[in-house]
Amino acid sequence: MTTRNLDRLFDPRSVAVIGASQDLTSISGQPLAHLRSHGYRGNIYPVNPKYTAIDGVKTYSAIGELPETPDLALILVNAARVPGVLRECGEKGISFAIIFSAGFSEIGAEGAILQQRVAETAKKYNVGVVGPNCQGMMNIPENVYAGFGSPFKMQPFRAGPVSMVSQSGGFGYSMASLAEEAGLGFRKIMSIGNEAGLTSMDFMEHFVDDEGTKIVVGYIEGLQDAYRLLEVGAAALARKKPILVWKMGRTEIGQKAAASHTGNLGGQSALYDALFKQKCIIQVEDVQDLIDYSNAFLYGKLPHGSRVAVVTASGGAGVALADQCAQSGLQFPSLAAQTIKKLRALLPAFSSLINPIDATPSLFNRPTGSAGLREVFQHILDDPNIDSLIVANSSVHGALATGIAQVIMELDRATTKPIFVCWSARDALAGDAFRILKDAKIPCYKTPTRCGKALGAVTRFALACRGQQAQQSEEIACIERPAVRAALRSRQGMISEYEAKAYLREYGICTTGDAVASSIEEARQIAGQMGYPVVIKIHSADISHKTEAGGVRLGISSDAELSAAYSGILESARRHSPQARIDGVLVQEMVRGGAEVILGILNSRQFGPAIMFGLGGIFTEVLNDVSFRFAPVTDAMARDMIAETKAAAILKGARGAPGVDVGGIASTIVKLSAMAIDLKEEIAELDINPLFVLRESGEAKAGDALISLADHQAARA
Amino acid sequence: MTTRNLDRLFDPRSVAVIGASQDLTSISGQPLAHLRSHGYRGNIYPVNPKYTAIDGVKTYSAIGELPETPDLALILVNAARVPGVLRECGEKGISFAIIFSAGFSEIGAEGAILQQRVAETAKKYNVGVVGPNCQGMMNIPENVYAGFGSPFKMQPFRAGPVSMVSQSGGFGYSMASLAEEAGLGFRKIMSIGNEAGLTSMDFMEHFVDDEGTKIVVGYIEGLQDAYRLLEVGAAALARKKPILVWKMGRTEIGQKAAASHTGNLGGQSALYDALFKQKCIIQVEDVQDLIDYSNAFLYGKLPHGSRVAVVTASGGAGVALADQCAQSGLQFPSLAAQTIKKLRALLPAFSSLINPIDATPSLFNRPTGSAGLREVFQHILDDPNIDSLIVANSSVHGALATGIAQVIMELDRATTKPIFVCWSARDALAGDAFRILKDAKIPCYKTPTRCGKALGAVTRFALACRGQQAQQSEEIACIERPAVRAALRSRQGMISEYEAKAYLREYGICTTGDAVASSIEEARQIAGQMGYPVVIKIHSADISHKTEAGGVRLGISSDAELSAAYSGILESARRHSPQARIDGVLVQEMVRGGAEVILGILNSRQFGPAIMFGLGGIFTEVLNDVSFRFAPVTDAMARDMIAETKAAAILKGARGAPGVDVGGIASTIVKLSAMAIDLKEEIAELDINPLFVLRESGEAKAGDALISLADHQAARA
Repeated sequence: MTTRNLDRLFDPRSVAVIGASQDLTSISGQPLAHLRSHGYRGNIYPVNPKYTAIDGVKTYSAIGELPETPDLALILVNAARVPGVLRECGEKGISFAIIFSAGFSEIGAEGAILQQRVAETAKKYNVGVVGPNCQGMMNIPENVYAGFGSPFKMQPFRAGPVSMVSQSGGFGYSMASLAEEAGLGFRKIMSIGNEAGLTSMDFMEHFVDDEGTKIVVGYIEGLQDAYRLLEVGAAALARKKPILVWKMGRTEIGQKAAASHTGNLGGQSALYDALFKQKCIIQVEDVQDLIDYSNAFLYGKLPHGSRVAVVTASGGAGVALADQCAQSGLQFPSLAAQTIKKLRALLPAFSSLINPIDATPSLFNRPTGSAGLREVFQHILDDPNIDSLIVANSSVHGALATGIAQVIMELDRATTKPIFVCWSARDALAGDAFRILKDAKIPCYKTPTRCGKALGAVTRFALACRGQQAQQSEEIACIERPAVRAALRSRQGMISEYEAKAYLREYGICTTGDAVASSIEEARQIAGQMGYPVVIKIHSADISHKTEAGGVRLGISSDAELSAAYSGILESARRHSPQARIDGVLVQEMVRGGAEVILGILNSRQFGPAIMFGLGGIFTEVLNDVSFRFAPVTDAMARDMIAETKAAAILKGARGAPGVDVGGIASTIVKLSAMAIDLKEEIAELDINPLFVLRESGEAKAGDALISLADHQAARA
Repeated sequence: MTTRNLDRLFDPRSVAVIGASQDLTSISGQPLAHLRSHGYRGNIYPVNPKYTAIDGVKTYSAIGELPETPDLALILVNAARVPGVLRECGEKGISFAIIFSAGFSEIGAEGAILQQRVAETAKKYNVGVVGPNCQGMMNIPENVYAGFGSPFKMQPFRAGPVSMVSQSGGFGYSMASLAEEAGLGFRKIMSIGNEAGLTSMDFMEHFVDDEGTKIVVGYIEGLQDAYRLLEVGAAALARKKPILVWKMGRTEIGQKAAASHTGNLGGQSALYDALFKQKCIIQVEDVQDLIDYSNAFLYGKLPHGSRVAVVTASGGAGVALADQCAQSGLQFPSLAAQTIKKLRALLPAFSSLINPIDATPSLFNRPTGSAGLREVFQHILDDPNIDSLIVANSSVHGALATGIAQVIMELDRATTKPIFVCWSARDALAGDAFRILKDAKIPCYKTPTRCGKALGAVTRFALACRGQQAQQSEEIACIERPAVRAALRSRQGMISEYEAKAYLREYGICTTGDAVASSIEEARQIAGQMGYPVVIKIHSADISHKTEAGGVRLGISSDAELSAAYSGILESARRHSPQARIDGVLVQEMVRGGAEVILGILNSRQFGPAIMFGLGGIFTEVLNDVSFRFAPVTDAMARDMIAETKAAAILKGARGAPGVDVGGIASTIVKLSAMAIDLKEEIAELDINPLFVLRESGEAKAGDALISLADHQAARA
């Protein structure tokens, strides 16, 4: 589906208000009142057969009677009437409708059916639908306030470059209102409700494209089309436009609450986290984060790296900044020798020149205009070892503060390196200083925690922008196997080891050698060619979990053992699954002396194909120590996903054991990613467990594999 | 040492200001100026031979000449002169001195020597010394402002029940100033500097005892006498008085910065975390936490349990609260059937009665005084399934807001259950409502994150107060073995397995059976009596790490194997450590079919004896998955410390393996704790690795042990 241009939704030339009430304080009365009180400039057409006029505005009895086709309809009628009204909008040719009415999927099965009808009607008439169960929108620079609730009743919001989409109307607008109160300017705000038509992703995409939007914000309980975040996130990185999300449903109880709120089923937290990480979508956990990070991004400077220097009047603030910056991923390099030499000449003997640099209060207490302060800051800024500077002014206030702010402002103009300020003075006592920094858009925070978090977010984003450029020059494996696609398309259920490994080999993934035997004699013959020791496994499409069925024997070292084991596993398998059709016995080379890991594909319509890596065993099952990346995965990304697990330490060789080269794992991940893309319509899950990694060569071989096919029945529904 | 009463330090009848300057804006001029400008009521005696008067106050040329003995001396002279001045203070009989001067341990070895002289002088003359390198103190209700820097220059702080000790002067006062600006009232604030005399712990203890202090706050980089927190924390729990700490040096870079700031070496983060956890000392990470938690505690109500109900006008706020509360350890029970029935009759059909309860805006928009709101809140409060209530009012404002606040206030008066409010309205629009709640001390937060965190902190503290009461009825193992103490007192270095296990048995800890053989024949005899299989190990006081020395053989099952192994380990050990004295070979029973864990004692003068538990292997060495408790450890505490490791899942029986009864481990921990207390002066470290846990009986047996003795040389220094 081509993306719909949403400009006319936010900036409609005329608006129909369907089901408008004469009680302007009621939910169905408010949108008309707010559009007018905030000075909407287009035509407004209330539609309600009960009235001829509402608040002096001519009111129509039916949508069909409107004198023109409005760009937008606001639908305020009872849930049951919504599909009919939407059809009329469609027939009139209206492009966009915001459905405020509640009583849809959030109330259960009955409401979900009604919502399905809304979705179908929207599709049939090609109406871009927002909602149902939403609170409306604001286009602040254009004075379009089409919604209800407290924030619509207030003074207009101050205009600015932050645009937001929220899956909660009440909460989203509350948070926006608090951020606005704290000085943040907004551009477009959309309460998206149950997403029967347009989704949060449509709005994030719109905001990323929207020239006037500099920061994209989303309050998210769950994304039905989460996979789109990969592309939208990439576009945002390319434009250096950050996306900040407040993701709800991080806990089980939160997910349950979200389900009963907007009927949103969420999805796995680990997959969201991986998705956000992969495109550096920045998570916020409170309004303060939103305000603090936005101020940092609106500043506009992105550091070239993560090496920060801190200069402070208070050793304690330096320690606090060091802690928070380290937690936020920043580095504290030593200053270059020549810088230290220059500083030593300027600072008191008690000063510590180990970064964070404790310049002591005496530096900050020198009369403004005197040498010292400016030179100290300048020398640190000039240091080739650092990418950004935090100046921590403690609670310096009054005229001294104003002078320091002036110096910082002047230095900031002349450098490409970001300067962040941590300043704990009271507003009433350092107002002039704060105003100077604010006018210069220099990020200034009252506490080290907030300052360090904000610089951390900006730095991560800067590195991700650069990383994406580097990534674009990396090779993306692309492997197309139409024959495999065709073979899987008509099938259902599980594909067991023998066949699954054959498919892996089609995509260049090494597997252990194996062959199917139909008799003990044949098994001996295969083992003879292969060389002992071997492994034998039951071969049956009906038995996915061979070990549980007693269908695996390892380390068989002679013909005699083979014969005994052959009979043994057949007997166990028959006892375990009497109905299973046994296709024979798999004779397989036995791999020894390497590490074992597991790889997987996890593919859904919500998220698209993700690749999973873990060490297996307790690391996966007890410690949940796995990492995810969404396809396509490059070699560098594969190495990152290995490195970010705790298991990486084991592969490096913990406790005196030799390490393994992870190159073989990484190249297998890259091929598996290509396979995941090629078979995106066919495969729901694929597990390689174990993937053997040979100690010497680092070569990786899939020891077992299992494919779970996509449910095409469900996909067509 | 008996604790010094600090009342006269904070409330001195007279103060000497030694080294006072006539420049009242300089650091050595400010304390005199601030004492006077804030209306200090006692006598002030500046001491400076250069002047006869400073700012009209009679000035003395020497301490000896003062007309009375002041309660407190403020010392502002150069570092080098401080020991001499302190001696004069001592000779004059002055009880307390605050040393502001810098240039001590924070500048390195030379300063550390000077600081040592200060400490010795203070001890000799029994002067209670604060500092050096500190910024002074405030006793706000008594108008004693004895310090320098911005916060001393401002209007007086508002008086309140929060007392704080800070290892950073500048930062501590900045944070206090911000908290005060946000409405928090303070009582006593002390900047403690380098702690040559009185320590942070002395002040925490004082604040816990101090009637007027309701909340104790500490900014901490490291505690030299951290072990005292156990007792002080217990006293705080007994008085239901929370201790909030902002602990710095949580990261490696933060620790490094702290070391160069106050010369504070910090110590292991894991031990601090364990200490804080054991006595429910609440960690804050920013000023906002400090303010938010303090407001929650000043409210005064402690919930009876962790079951919270949320009722909200915005489903989104409900989801956000659910997430934050769950992360903060709160539970979300279902309401009782009778409550749901009553609510169903009062709330619109769209409402969700699954906790968090989405009552929809319509409930909150009903005219004040109408039924509904009050009844809904009351029914939820009355529900036997819940211990606390959060009301989330979204951004409701104006007269409606005032009415809702009134209802909450009235309900709050009539219930013992805490009511917390999450209200995102702007101050300007809901000022009356906020004032009603503030006057009633009902905690009210602008965002769900802050509200959930604060209720979480109060709930954890309430449970800890109760837990401490329960714990006091639990048996504390006390085992005294004067013979063992005596045997260890004169020794140094390491105590190896055979002897260490003998000591363990003295404290009732089971060990594997073993005996020392001096010849192959003797070894055979022992093995014959013990029964094969056996383990043999080299027995040498000089070889602590037997496995590395090739000195261990497991699973020996016959006389022939024993003979070969006996010669083998002797040869390996001699090759590995030619100088080592070999005391024989240890023949030991071989334990099979159980789990293995490790236990330890970690004892230092800073922290006192801590007990460590871990699963060993990669869990300890790679994943750092260990837990600590400080002795004495009861059986319930031991079970908690096992349960809080990730390894606990393995012991329960992960991946189809049978679980083990942890009772044997817990009782071993309790005995080890008794041993740690009895041998607190003798042992620095003790490792039991492994502790075998028998699968069937749950019985635990130490398989190996190693003791590292305390360095008495250092202890005496």
